Amino acid sequence: MSSDAAEVISIGQYIVRRLEEQGVQSIFGVPGSFLAQFCDDVESSNIKWVGECNELNAAYAADGYARYRRGLGVVATTVGVGELSAINGIAGSFAEELPVLHIVGQQKTADQEAGLNVIHTLGDGRYSALPYTCSQLLLSKVDIALGNADARIDKVIVDCISKSRPAYIALPWDLVDVEITTKRLTTKLTARDIPIDPDAEQAAIDHIYRRFDDAFSGELDNNVVVIADVSVSRHHCKDEAADFLAATNLPVYGTPLGKTVVNETSERYGGVYIGKLSSAEVKQKVETAKLVLFLGPLTTDFNSGNFSTNVKQERSIKLHFDHTDVGFATYSHTGMKVLLPKLAERLQVFKDKASQLDVPKFENKKVKDTDALIKHSWLWWRLAAWFEEKDLIVTEAGTVSYGVVDLALPKDSSLLAQKLWASIGWSMGGTHGATRARRELEGDGTQTILFIGDGSLQMTVQEISSMIRSDIKPIIFVLVNGGYTIERLQHSVDAEYHNIVTWHYGDLLKVLSRDQVPTQTYRVTKESELGNLLDVEKIRDKGIMQLVEIVVGRDDAPPALLRALGLDQPKGGEKGSNKVALRARHGWIGW
Amino acid sequence: MSSDAAEVISIGQYIVRRLEEQGVQSIFGVPGSFLAQFCDDVESSNIKWVGECNELNAAYAADGYARYRRGLGVVATTVGVGELSAINGIAGSFAEELPVLHIVGQQKTADQEAGLNVIHTLGDGRYSALPYTCSQLLLSKVDIALGNADARIDKVIVDCISKSRPAYIALPWDLVDVEITTKRLTTKLTARDIPIDPDAEQAAIDHIYRRFDDAFSGELDNNVVVIADVSVSRHHCKDEAADFLAATNLPVYGTPLGKTVVNETSERYGGVYIGKLSSAEVKQKVETAKLVLFLGPLTTDFNSGNFSTNVKQERSIKLHFDHTDVGFATYSHTGMKVLLPKLAERLQVFKDKASQLDVPKFENKKVKDTDALIKHSWLWWRLAAWFEEKDLIVTEAGTVSYGVVDLALPKDSSLLAQKLWASIGWSMGGTHGATRARRELEGDGTQTILFIGDGSLQMTVQEISSMIRSDIKPIIFVLVNGGYTIERLQHSVDAEYHNIVTWHYGDLLKVLSRDQVPTQTYRVTKESELGNLLDVEKIRDKGIMQLVEIVVGRDDAPPALLRALGLDQPKGGEKGSNKVALRARHGWIGW
Repeated sequence: MSSDAAEVISIGQYIVRRLEEQGVQSIFGVPGSFLAQFCDDVESSNIKWVGECNELNAAYAADGYARYRRGLGVVATTVGVGELSAINGIAGSFAEELPVLHIVGQQKTADQEAGLNVIHTLGDGRYSALPYTCSQLLLSKVDIALGNADARIDKVIVDCISKSRPAYIALPWDLVDVEITTKRLTTKLTARDIPIDPDAEQAAIDHIYRRFDDAFSGELDNNVVVIADVSVSRHHCKDEAADFLAATNLPVYGTPLGKTVVNETSERYGGVYIGKLSSAEVKQKVETAKLVLFLGPLTTDFNSGNFSTNVKQERSIKLHFDHTDVGFATYSHTGMKVLLPKLAERLQVFKDKASQLDVPKFENKKVKDTDALIKHSWLWWRLAAWFEEKDLIVTEAGTVSYGVVDLALPKDSSLLAQKLWASIGWSMGGTHGATRARRELEGDGTQTILFIGDGSLQMTVQEISSMIRSDIKPIIFVLVNGGYTIERLQHSVDAEYHNIVTWHYGDLLKVLSRDQVPTQTYRVTKESELGNLLDVEKIRDKGIMQLVEIVVGRDDAPPALLRALGLDQPKGGEKGSNKVALRARHGWIGW
Repeated sequence: MSSDAAEVISIGQYIVRRLEEQGVQSIFGVPGSFLAQFCDDVESSNIKWVGECNELNAAYAADGYARYRRGLGVVATTVGVGELSAINGIAGSFAEELPVLHIVGQQKTADQEAGLNVIHTLGDGRYSALPYTCSQLLLSKVDIALGNADARIDKVIVDCISKSRPAYIALPWDLVDVEITTKRLTTKLTARDIPIDPDAEQAAIDHIYRRFDDAFSGELDNNVVVIADVSVSRHHCKDEAADFLAATNLPVYGTPLGKTVVNETSERYGGVYIGKLSSAEVKQKVETAKLVLFLGPLTTDFNSGNFSTNVKQERSIKLHFDHTDVGFATYSHTGMKVLLPKLAERLQVFKDKASQLDVPKFENKKVKDTDALIKHSWLWWRLAAWFEEKDLIVTEAGTVSYGVVDLALPKDSSLLAQKLWASIGWSMGGTHGATRARRELEGDGTQTILFIGDGSLQMTVQEISSMIRSDIKPIIFVLVNGGYTIERLQHSVDAEYHNIVTWHYGDLLKVLSRDQVPTQTYRVTKESELGNLLDVEKIRDKGIMQLVEIVVGRDDAPPALLRALGLDQPKGGEKGSNKVALRARHGWIGW
């Protein structure tokens, strides 16, 4: 076929071809009433249909999939009931900038035109929901008649991957098998480049160079530090950031959301900067630096110590994916992906000086296993010693998300968390999707580790079944404390409404399994019991799905959360009765 | 306190007082980050906070609660993640006209004003989602400053109960404890009356009388029939309809959605009219009647045999909650609740003639228990013989919803189903909410029976835990067939995407229970095994939550569903390969 030859192909197959082209190998979904035609196209393609127990979990899985592979994830549902069940997941992908395409099987065209009260309608003529997406197509016969269905489908996919936000295609089921004639498949879809103006870029580089030159002109003491944040990984600049740091040898710090963006075991890595919640040493280094270079910064409550970042704008340089701030000057039409290599070359003249700058030693605390009950103040350090290179660590949004903040995570490990949208329950689907994506990209042989609280687990527990079906074998650590601890610590600690029912988790995997799939569940309350699982039983080597119940105190929490809530000091500073009640009970320090 | 004395009360307490006044005794919810202040108000009131595992289940439970009590149901969630997880439930309540109030705990005012990226925001300054509601209040400091917070709260509640649609109140958490001065609590909130014009009403009555007079003027043969439909119960007219039928003795038929609206064991009740899917006898009676009086009709695909109702408009009279159609004439400002008693009086002159009109005998088929494997063609008749008066029967939207269509259900039994919105998984929360409402209204001592397929159960399985926590003890019949059978029967019967994992349901209740709460699970495959549970083991008398796995054939379905899909005839009429494949396999009739 010549390169401009026309091809005859059905709408459904056209979409599937475009998804295959984007490297999509899994579509997560639930096959509702109007989706079957599209499901047929998936089933006859190279893409695997991943059936989920419900649509919210499917959306979370597509989020995790897009998050890990830094590319398109796809969720497919029926209209109305299905898409609305998924919408919280889609909104989360919107908030956290992930390219998730939501494909919706709709009522047939004629029913929509007649405004009939068919199932999954609101009874008032409304058929579809589509907020929280950056681009939409409600496919209609008009698109087909005008011969632009292919172009409109392409636009939505390109928008999705270019803007890195969810997008939406609704397919009336009677149009899925309609054939179109298209020449477009001869050209692969790619994300639109960020517009770069070479003159603007050169001006930005010159400006940054002058600032570095000024900063390094005096004596060598805390002249320049780098803070590597989450947008580096969201916009696929981890390699560029690593090369820049290697070329300049600058001191570098992380952020809570930016964990694992740079190598945390490097000698030039000094720990996490979180405004007022930082360690005293990190706080001093960052806040007294003459110049702070932010790579891909994102300001959220969790990521900034509740908006307490204390770096004056005049002392800061911020590289974003589509613009650059140098002090008070903004350079549009510049972006960190192309800028970072050029900066590395221009700024490497400062490498010798930068290499002499002190970086606080950032090491994991060593702890021993005793027969004491497990406390958060011990738990996370113990786990840090057990993590390995290339581990994929997923943390739920609640209490556990604070557990890893203080840890140096292994080289080439990945940490995934949904912390702006912060929808508890996300991590179950997120783990499923991310682990599938990793298997597709890198094969088996690495370990996925999920940390989740019992309240979060109960939100989306059926996802365990979907993971087993996908032959995904994470080790799931469930922190069992009978309720929503992060809420307790903030308000009315003893209120009944914070409580959940403590399930009998021991049989949970068995109930949710297919026949014959081996799983194992453990329950630990003492340090020595967990230590035994990690080092003697070596659960990492078992190669099956495992769930570890870690029973902890109802009001205990990781040190970083206690700091965030002002509960880390033995006394003083109480504003509300909740803190007074908590302190009276535990004394906190080493409770 | 004099009747016009002002009261000082916090916003949160004001809302709780208004809800108590509406008879609300349970609020279903999940206590997210910004809801704790309002939860405190609930916890210190006479209303019970019913903690749910996730927000979708909470919304479903509030729907079931409103549905059973025919009054306000309340769901409370946090903003963003919580409200969007609930939104499919809210949309269902909208589609099915239920007064569910959604209370959302929001970020504090100052954070919203500053547009901060706090958790549960979209990162673009958007804070709230509120479609699918008939009335909204985003409470702000301005409302408090203007002194009209109380009036605005009242308006939303009155809209909710008057329009019988969901409504929405968002409460920035810093405003919940703000005190207001109000005189409004001295007046109870009530639904706005439907506007009635006495002259229009009289004209409608005269017109209807003339039509009856004409219809009864010839020989007595199928002169007038009544079809009682679901809006009778939605608009609280069951008593008026019963009185009308007693006064006139007219033949009456039901509809799939209108089941249990009138007494199905009455000699004047002839079965269900579903257009082309009706039994031959019912079809003949309705479609050849000189006059058909529809009480509260609602046209949906499920309710009308896919829009095959065959009654000419000129031969029909339709009583709606807010207008009346007589042939081609519409009378606005009339409504069935006040019209029915007047019509009963005016039309009782036809009672003698009406009493002589034949009604087909509508009885449940008698079946015996053999050692055969259970088929749908046996199952529902067997269950019909076991149902008792006052049973509350809940059916999920999928395959099982068709099981009860052909049955005569006992007097004073209630059947709840969500069949327009048709969101599978609804029935779990629906059962919880409806049973709580019934306990509040009528005390214990009646039985709730839930029918659900395995695919639907997996959607919302954690609701079992919430029911146990609420001390709700339904008998849950789970139809186990390994997937979405209603979808299989419609398209690509053997496709992999219709499959789910068959869980080990035997241990499910145990996993989801509190300690010490007794439950029991059974698994049956043969008729005799189920018969034994019903009549020998007498599971109805055990007074604990029980789950009965009924294993059925993968492609088997209730007769009414086979009819609806045109699969009830042994051959002929196939349009698609799916039907051919199904027939080739089973021959269907008595497979």
